Amino acid sequence: MRGFVLYNSLTRRLETFSPLRKNEVRMYVCGPTVYDYPHIGHGRTYSAFDTLKRWLAYKGYDVYHVMNITDVGHLTGDTDYGEDKILKRALEKKMEPMVLVERMTDAFFEQMELLNVIKPDLTPRASCHIPEIIEITKKIMENGYAYEVNGSVYFDVEKYAKDYTYPEFIGMDLEELEKNYRIEPVPEKRNKWDFALWKRAPPSHILQWPSPWGYGFPGWHIECTVMSAKYLGEEFDIHGGGEDLKFPHHTDERAQAFAAFGKGLARYWLHTGFVRINGEKMSKSTGNFVYLHEATERYGGDVVRFWAVNSHYRRQIDYTEEAMESARNALDSLYIFMQDLEEAGGGSEKDMYREEFVRKFEEAMDNDLDTVTAIKSMFELRNKWYNENLFERVSEEEAKKTYDTLLRMGGVLGLGLDAKTYRRKVLERYQDEIIKMLRDIRDEIRKRKLYEVSDEIRERLKEFGIELMDSREGSRIRFRR
Amino acid sequence: MRGFVLYNSLTRRLETFSPLRKNEVRMYVCGPTVYDYPHIGHGRTYSAFDTLKRWLAYKGYDVYHVMNITDVGHLTGDTDYGEDKILKRALEKKMEPMVLVERMTDAFFEQMELLNVIKPDLTPRASCHIPEIIEITKKIMENGYAYEVNGSVYFDVEKYAKDYTYPEFIGMDLEELEKNYRIEPVPEKRNKWDFALWKRAPPSHILQWPSPWGYGFPGWHIECTVMSAKYLGEEFDIHGGGEDLKFPHHTDERAQAFAAFGKGLARYWLHTGFVRINGEKMSKSTGNFVYLHEATERYGGDVVRFWAVNSHYRRQIDYTEEAMESARNALDSLYIFMQDLEEAGGGSEKDMYREEFVRKFEEAMDNDLDTVTAIKSMFELRNKWYNENLFERVSEEEAKKTYDTLLRMGGVLGLGLDAKTYRRKVLERYQDEIIKMLRDIRDEIRKRKLYEVSDEIRERLKEFGIELMDSREGSRIRFRR
Repeated sequence: MRGFVLYNSLTRRLETFSPLRKNEVRMYVCGPTVYDYPHIGHGRTYSAFDTLKRWLAYKGYDVYHVMNITDVGHLTGDTDYGEDKILKRALEKKMEPMVLVERMTDAFFEQMELLNVIKPDLTPRASCHIPEIIEITKKIMENGYAYEVNGSVYFDVEKYAKDYTYPEFIGMDLEELEKNYRIEPVPEKRNKWDFALWKRAPPSHILQWPSPWGYGFPGWHIECTVMSAKYLGEEFDIHGGGEDLKFPHHTDERAQAFAAFGKGLARYWLHTGFVRINGEKMSKSTGNFVYLHEATERYGGDVVRFWAVNSHYRRQIDYTEEAMESARNALDSLYIFMQDLEEAGGGSEKDMYREEFVRKFEEAMDNDLDTVTAIKSMFELRNKWYNENLFERVSEEEAKKTYDTLLRMGGVLGLGLDAKTYRRKVLERYQDEIIKMLRDIRDEIRKRKLYEVSDEIRERLKEFGIELMDSREGSRIRFRR
Repeated sequence: MRGFVLYNSLTRRLETFSPLRKNEVRMYVCGPTVYDYPHIGHGRTYSAFDTLKRWLAYKGYDVYHVMNITDVGHLTGDTDYGEDKILKRALEKKMEPMVLVERMTDAFFEQMELLNVIKPDLTPRASCHIPEIIEITKKIMENGYAYEVNGSVYFDVEKYAKDYTYPEFIGMDLEELEKNYRIEPVPEKRNKWDFALWKRAPPSHILQWPSPWGYGFPGWHIECTVMSAKYLGEEFDIHGGGEDLKFPHHTDERAQAFAAFGKGLARYWLHTGFVRINGEKMSKSTGNFVYLHEATERYGGDVVRFWAVNSHYRRQIDYTEEAMESARNALDSLYIFMQDLEEAGGGSEKDMYREEFVRKFEEAMDNDLDTVTAIKSMFELRNKWYNENLFERVSEEEAKKTYDTLLRMGGVLGLGLDAKTYRRKVLERYQDEIIKMLRDIRDEIRKRKLYEVSDEIRERLKEFGIELMDSREGSRIRFRR
């Protein structure tokens, strides 16, 4: 096995990946807070981690993939002030919060399916782990890294920073953090960087549970520490999420893990870059914002996936009409290539280039998932075929091998390049028109008294469940399974 | 609004349905224990409750529908002996239990979608409600109806039976129960009919949580009391499930509710009859067993749904090859009728029968969901059209109205009678063959030098994303979205 190099946000450098267990990779990716439909940024991030997972599988690893669903405790301020995002939206919509949660979760996975993102093995929900969250919070208090005030429990950052590094990932110490991050002060905290493990709930708060500190709800960060450790162990291989999670979310998740277990969860921490819209920062408040379903409805899930993986996962990526149209054109030219390959053959030559471009593809993927170069190698292979017109020169078997190779490369990137599926997609839109055209053609043929041809059409269509019934005004069509 | 009569298993007689809140119906249906793929019995039961929900919606009610997912606590003995069904299967498959749970839950909803069962508004999972289960268990103990032994908590049936009716639904008292039901004795129980609210867990048991009585897991029955009361209140309208749930599951659910709240959850309890396979009881151990996916793969989800609703929900129903084929033929004749209606019109008459059969349909549905008679009324309407050849006599508008009426009647039963969807289903199977046939026809036409026709075919196909490229050996087809 060739070395697979990944950029580790923890060390801020490229490292050769080596899992804790032989042949097995255990991976946790921070999932969505399901108070709204997913946006285009979710499409980008989860396409990237899905590609990572597919690449690990290609390399022979068993991948065990856990992604949480946050359904409580994520506040509008992203730290310890503001309202619970789920509860706020549920009240606005006059819905039971968990009905909102289920609907948004289903919408999320529906969009993921359109992007060809394989569902994680496990998608635990935060609100389903209240007993475990209370246990770990107690443990952190016992270890001296948290304190209770008025029914809330806070993590003691000052104490922790004496024993461990805080923050991580962003290359700052607490002093620099002070200068670069604004945070709302919460008077009952000992230190402004302290964060809540458990928050007391006012009686009106619907999402609350009993705890040793009274009724309340968990902090956002502790949820991921608890769920990742519960299902993957206190130490596992990969932990991922969007760039914005480096601080405070991942920093605090890891701090809690050290404070509870003396271990920091994952060995490799991966982060995806932001999506910009027309060159500007995405933001709901300014309206420079795109829901994922808007993109998939407009361009198709396969085009959005192609757009997402046709940029390096750590870089910012721009969502523009031109970018999407260029993604569609590029992807369509691959689909046409697949159709041409399906019918190629008849010659006796071998495909001289396949292995070379597979090697290029693999090297690119091994180089911190350089999907841009990997896709380029697919197009180089394609261009060779057209430039040297291999379609007539190679044997049918060779053409089939190249088709399968493309299918496999596409598979790693989450692109379903299968020609038959593509044809169905095209056909679906005009199915009724096409059948009516068939009928019109046949009527035309009958008018010209070519009964031999028109009868054959009728017989063959019947085999397909389509009956033509001739009458004076032309023929009628009936479908029967 | 006409009276809607339902059979209430609680009173064992037909009653006129009247919800607690005006225009709103709150309904809880016991969901699957997700240790395996759903079987044909699930298809029958959830089609029935989906039909009930659709009928309530047709009558103008807002329906709030909750269905639990049991992912812990349901033991192989269905009472307090045996192993946890989820855990047992997970250990056999060497899987994390919650991975099994998610996979089987997804498989369940996938099958439900094929049957056109609308997803409930809320599908809470038992393991996500441990704190609530512990709270209600404490309440029942405080009220004197439960006791702790060695870290398990049991419901005190003797004490309860002095204050309330026990059992319910099955028309027996405890003495008759003794003669008719076999139950494994558990030595630490005070009385053999006592049942567990909380079971202590051996250290090896993966599914366990801390509680005031030590580490353990909840009993199967308490889960539904807690989840139904949490999301629908201590008193709501309808509680449903399969016939086998009358005792002990629903009896115990209701007893716990009285013991905790002094209220018995639902006012109407509905139960569906068993599915038999080829006239015999369904049983995994004898192999006389059908998974739901086997049926939907073989006959199509729409045919299975038709079979399920073409029998009264309280009666036993037989799954046989003949029954399924006859369901398919009947359903297909409705689809053909819909296609005929689509093209009907040209006359000036009204459809004289529509209102009459709609009335029959509604009366049947109001009569304890007599779907058999309701379906019969649809066929009677259909037969009138053929017998009196209304297709040429009525106006286009009238034909459209009848089409829409059928669509609405079918909608209540969960039958998607839409002709276009049906055509797509038929087309999908032979899409490639049909397009190749189109090409062959065109090649034939070109051979006969009818270039005018062949050029038109090419132009029109191009509009549909299908390009024909002529060459010496005939023409090639390329699809492009």
